[in-house]
Amino acid sequence: MAQLIFKGRDIYYDVKGLGKPFVILNGIMMSTKSWEPFMESFSENNMCIRLDFLDQGQSAKLKSSVYTQDLQVQIIEALIKELNLSKVSIVGISYGGEVALEFAVKHPNLVDRLVLFNTTPYTSPWLAEIGYKWNSIGRTRDGKTYYQATIPAIYSPSFYESRLAWMKKREEILLPIFSNPDFLDAMERLTNSAEHYDVRDRLDQITAPTLIVAADEDYLTPINNQKYLNEHIKESSLVILPGVGHASMYETPMVFVSLVLGFINTKQTSYQV
Amino acid sequence: MAQLIFKGRDIYYDVKGLGKPFVILNGIMMSTKSWEPFMESFSENNMCIRLDFLDQGQSAKLKSSVYTQDLQVQIIEALIKELNLSKVSIVGISYGGEVALEFAVKHPNLVDRLVLFNTTPYTSPWLAEIGYKWNSIGRTRDGKTYYQATIPAIYSPSFYESRLAWMKKREEILLPIFSNPDFLDAMERLTNSAEHYDVRDRLDQITAPTLIVAADEDYLTPINNQKYLNEHIKESSLVILPGVGHASMYETPMVFVSLVLGFINTKQTSYQV
Amino acid sequence: MAQLIFKGRDIYYDVKGLGKPFVILNGIMMSTKSWEPFMESFSENNMCIRLDFLDQGQSAKLKSSVYTQDLQVQIIEALIKELNLSKVSIVGISYGGEVALEFAVKHPNLVDRLVLFNTTPYTSPWLAEIGYKWNSIGRTRDGKTYYQATIPAIYSPSFYESRLAWMKKREEILLPIFSNPDFLDAMERLTNSAEHYDVRDRLDQITAPTLIVAADEDYLTPINNQKYLNEHIKESSLVILPGVGHASMYETPMVFVSLVLGFINTKQTSYQV
Amino acid sequence: MAQLIFKGRDIYYDVKGLGKPFVILNGIMMSTKSWEPFMESFSENNMCIRLDFLDQGQSAKLKSSVYTQDLQVQIIEALIKELNLSKVSIVGISYGGEVALEFAVKHPNLVDRLVLFNTTPYTSPWLAEIGYKWNSIGRTRDGKTYYQATIPAIYSPSFYESRLAWMKKREEILLPIFSNPDFLDAMERLTNSAEHYDVRDRLDQITAPTLIVAADEDYLTPINNQKYLNEHIKESSLVILPGVGHASMYETPMVFVSLVLGFINTKQTSYQV
Repeated sequence: MAQLIFKGRDIYYDVKGLGKPFVILNGIMMSTKSWEPFMESFSENNMCIRLDFLDQGQSAKLKSSVYTQDLQVQIIEALIKELNLSKVSIVGISYGGEVALEFAVKHPNLVDRLVLFNTTPYTSPWLAEIGYKWNSIGRTRDGKTYYQATIPAIYSPSFYESRLAWMKKREEILLPIFSNPDFLDAMERLTNSAEHYDVRDRLDQITAPTLIVAADEDYLTPINNQKYLNEHIKESSLVILPGVGHASMYETPMVFVSLVLGFINTKQTSYQV
Repeated sequence: MAQLIFKGRDIYYDVKGLGKPFVILNGIMMSTKSWEPFMESFSENNMCIRLDFLDQGQSAKLKSSVYTQDLQVQIIEALIKELNLSKVSIVGISYGGEVALEFAVKHPNLVDRLVLFNTTPYTSPWLAEIGYKWNSIGRTRDGKTYYQATIPAIYSPSFYESRLAWMKKREEILLPIFSNPDFLDAMERLTNSAEHYDVRDRLDQITAPTLIVAADEDYLTPINNQKYLNEHIKESSLVILPGVGHASMYETPMVFVSLVLGFINTKQTSYQV
Repeated sequence: MAQLIFKGRDIYYDVKGLGKPFVILNGIMMSTKSWEPFMESFSENNMCIRLDFLDQGQSAKLKSSVYTQDLQVQIIEALIKELNLSKVSIVGISYGGEVALEFAVKHPNLVDRLVLFNTTPYTSPWLAEIGYKWNSIGRTRDGKTYYQATIPAIYSPSFYESRLAWMKKREEILLPIFSNPDFLDAMERLTNSAEHYDVRDRLDQITAPTLIVAADEDYLTPINNQKYLNEHIKESSLVILPGVGHASMYETPMVFVSLVLGFINTKQTSYQV
Repeated sequence: MAQLIFKGRDIYYDVKGLGKPFVILNGIMMSTKSWEPFMESFSENNMCIRLDFLDQGQSAKLKSSVYTQDLQVQIIEALIKELNLSKVSIVGISYGGEVALEFAVKHPNLVDRLVLFNTTPYTSPWLAEIGYKWNSIGRTRDGKTYYQATIPAIYSPSFYESRLAWMKKREEILLPIFSNPDFLDAMERLTNSAEHYDVRDRLDQITAPTLIVAADEDYLTPINNQKYLNEHIKESSLVILPGVGHASMYETPMVFVSLVLGFINTKQTSYQV
């Protein structure tokens, strides 16, 4: 539980464990707390670094500001410096995967390995439209509709149905949050910060071994996005999770953790087969 | 252009062409007009029967009523009788595919062949949630948000992007319709009429040769739904359209028409291979 | 049942039915007889033209010759001329699909529509190796091993198992044929005629509306081949048959016939959606 | 490099590294040496136990014997006892995955975690036919044909083509081995030992957390086999490797190693999400 001052703003972060360091970057609706269930594994043999992006969790809110994801990229750079690390692995999901990619194309030498879950290389017109919808509904302050408009696009139909009781409990937890104007405004700013995101023409600058994880019921960043990443990032491999949606870390937690720790900790990155 | 009086209500229908008859059933947002681009092909060697369901197009509106899809099923039965047909093929997409299935399990002897595009055997809790969202947003009367909440879930990301100009024109056409309270109220009633739809335990009653068409970017009635249909309908075959979404008839029109006409007109239904 | 003399050799062909003409081209192990189960449907409203390629069925054998598929292409050209047809649709499967593609890039103006089942745009080193195996085993004259080396690669695991009795009967029929040295030698020449087949850099010359049909358990010409065709043929659409293998015409006959007749007979090829 | 005497026969095995122990079980054509490229990673934080099955590598040959895979299962049991281990994780590929499954249903309490690559729950009639072909060709002693009959079914078309030079070098290495009568006879016995393999009705006895890895260009144990395992093993998860074939460990080595080490070493097996 620590704070970094970035351009006069508080950034909340947390470091746990000893070993090869990795930064794990939140999806748009997440916060450092979202990773709590995995921390026992993440910190067993690694230094796991979590942070709340600006406008997330306990970090500063940027009321009435317009910004792009590059601001979040700068925060990661500052945090790595603060921690005196020369190189880290970066793990990101969705919005966090986008920031991870932007960081990796800007600072290839700082990245040891890269693991991307449910990540797109750009905000397509189709995805932008979904963001506009989230924003429009957020402005109505109707938490229930915001839930209906976001959550069934985030969890797969397979998971939604097989874990219906869990989803209902989730709804109870989320409704008050989704009815909070501050949360909804922060969500709108975060959504807008990704509106023009596009790293497609810079993917060749990434040099780190990269694991790309797609989920075949991901309806926000569908599998074609991850295929594109796999075709354009040199040292990359693609893995597909069947029956899983956009919230892969909660839908298939043991596979999620295994992929993260397996890929960043494996000693060799090349094999004389 | 004709009218059927059903329980005192006007049902608008249209019959075009001569030959083996087939009824084509609209998706929830569609009307008889939606099929106009295909009518030259549909009527060349077939009698093509279109109709507006209750609460669609030029048929009666059921203001302040609550009903289930069984009412639509009864209309089809009445229409077949009106036209003095002993057996018809039925083609349906989405909502229309649901009504087609309900008709086929209720009146197996009236169905010659069945073609189902983008159809689910039941309204899952996940799909129901999407319906609730549509309804919530409809009640705000905000056409733009209604567009954002529905259309990107209906057209595939692939189509949306490769045909962006077409989508923009579509938006212009749809915005005034989506801002019309009567349309939005009718949409809510139609959505509600499918809320408890479930034919899973009656699929074995279908005897007609059945073609099930799935689209692998269909995020409303995903491919697992069509696999279920294929596993439970005796004489069924499954075909998958890659890079296509829920609006398959507009996304890949030549394949759509070929599948409809090929399957309902082929002379043999069994082959001595 | 008719004969065409091509460069002094007998070519056996057959014309059945009246209507829009289409030529259907055999896979490598097939002959005109292989289409018999479908002829009632194929000839109902169409003129269906079948032929045995050189070294197939009742056509001439080219003992001790070396040739490429271009010879088969010339035969089709001669046959179309013989029948006084100005334009035909062409349907091909596997080897027949390859000849169809070579014909279409050479004579785009003679092709009305094109339907390709289980077809690759080129003989990859991987596929060539499979051909060498077939040839090596053919030379042992051991029909049983030839059966084991070819048939499980042609029929899908799903079909093989669900239709085991049919497969066993098929084995009885095929064993004597596969033990016939003349058949095996002809198979070797046919296999060799495709060894250097590659139309990849000429696919842009195809102007006919084209339907490409892939089968997801096709282990001879896997789905990536059909995706390549779809990406490089201008007016093409791709359809996938799940749980089906390389012998799609026998594994899912009603879908096979529906796709052929639906696609070549549909009146419109463009739609004002 | 050590030897275990099992029923009077020498079994060659090797133990390397300290940490959580796992046994890695060879595919049919493999031996302990096949894992050499991965040993630096496998032994870094784990005790990695390799062995040659009977009729493999440096273990005893069972000339003129008929046996089933249960004999190999007994060897693993004996080896675990010899090493004084109370519980191990088991990793298997193909034939090794089959033995792993048979071991896990017989000794659920001895298995900590299970990782299965390219594994089927039973030898289907289709797969049996492929085995008969291998045996028939093996008996001709023609190494080149044996290569053509086996290797293109083991490596994916994608890998075969993108790594053509590697494949050619592999062919040079394999041809002398595939021309060795002792190797071919051992292969026949190993193939026959799996002829009646079927654990489908005992999969519910497996209690270990299980990772099932499918490869979508695996044409020997296709993806439907792994889906079956995933549906019937309680604590199992499925991961799909796109563009990869039956030899997943060599086609995508970094993913292979990451999945093995990630899954067997992750501290938690359940998560309070």
